[in-house]
Amino acid sequence: MSYKKLILNTNKNFEIVDITSMINREIDIDSGIVNVFSKHSTSAIVVNENESGLLADLELLLDDLVSDKYSWQHDNIDNNAKSHLKSFLLSSSETIPITHGKLDLGTWQSVFFIELDGPRNNRTVNLKFISD
Amino acid sequence: MSYKKLILNTNKNFEIVDITSMINREIDIDSGIVNVFSKHSTSAIVVNENESGLLADLELLLDDLVSDKYSWQHDNIDNNAKSHLKSFLLSSSETIPITHGKLDLGTWQSVFFIELDGPRNNRTVNLKFISD
Amino acid sequence: MSYKKLILNTNKNFEIVDITSMINREIDIDSGIVNVFSKHSTSAIVVNENESGLLADLELLLDDLVSDKYSWQHDNIDNNAKSHLKSFLLSSSETIPITHGKLDLGTWQSVFFIELDGPRNNRTVNLKFISD
Repeated sequence: MSYKKLILNTNKNFEIVDITSMINREIDIDSGIVNVFSKHSTSAIVVNENESGLLADLELLLDDLVSDKYSWQHDNIDNNAKSHLKSFLLSSSETIPITHGKLDLGTWQSVFFIELDGPRNNRTVNLKFISD
Repeated sequence: MSYKKLILNTNKNFEIVDITSMINREIDIDSGIVNVFSKHSTSAIVVNENESGLLADLELLLDDLVSDKYSWQHDNIDNNAKSHLKSFLLSSSETIPITHGKLDLGTWQSVFFIELDGPRNNRTVNLKFISD
Repeated sequence: MSYKKLILNTNKNFEIVDITSMINREIDIDSGIVNVFSKHSTSAIVVNENESGLLADLELLLDDLVSDKYSWQHDNIDNNAKSHLKSFLLSSSETIPITHGKLDLGTWQSVFFIELDGPRNNRTVNLKFISD
């Protein structure tokens, strides 16, 4: 069994945490895949470029797509409908190749945990390593 | 080999089916991952919270994003372009961790099959279990 | 170890390459999964129907969602913010079941590499095969 967890604390409502090096430190297989899965439905796991302007652009895009013009029903239960809806448009997980004991990413790729409803303590990301 | 199928019938054009307990019943490994894959390109597999207001919000969001203002070309072939386009924005599959013989989800997470072009009979979801 | 790469050259800014048969040719396991992962953050891997009108509809949808009305910050670094943002809305990878030595897809499903910032040479797609 090869199973690890990352525990993250976030400081802002929208925050992008680069977890690439945290995952690399936990890898204990030479070749295979890792399933990176966030246990929260107001967050996301994505792979893209770590450039501060681009990450600000992503925040703007998500605010543009999940419009303020509607009265979202989930806000009557828990005032975070837009956080959930942004999570639907991204994804709860990514599965990523591992080669020679490291994430097999492109030059301009990082793995991100995206907080969509922070600040929060103890955000948990499951890592399952599967050897090939 | 550890391979199962779920067969679903849907009753509405847009319908969200919570398949969490169906998947849990099929699990025959202690620790690893399951790849949950819909064999249809007018449906999706997602993980989020099972709250009826939120699921209505998702339907509204998808209708807002895939606009009626365009004349979609695929409607000339098969009158369901918007169903396919919503599927592109969500995803055909999710890969989910299994720990102690159960889906290792957060408290507020469920696994959903989303029907985007129903009602339909015999919607098939592949489940592949991989032990770690 | 069962690890392959696809190397693709693209000819247009937006281009959809059907890689289903390329993946099928590389499969060397009977049953399991394949993780199909693009090493580029201005591209995507998706599963949907290979119908030319629908693929044109997808291009139109992405241009509609990632609006020209904003001045994207990443364009000051590298003039391709919209390509990255479209990639966030799709996904860098898909994990797909394999049964009887072939991708276990539905009748109307193909696997696509989507070029969002072409033309480019040597686009690399990792294939990791995991037997169950």
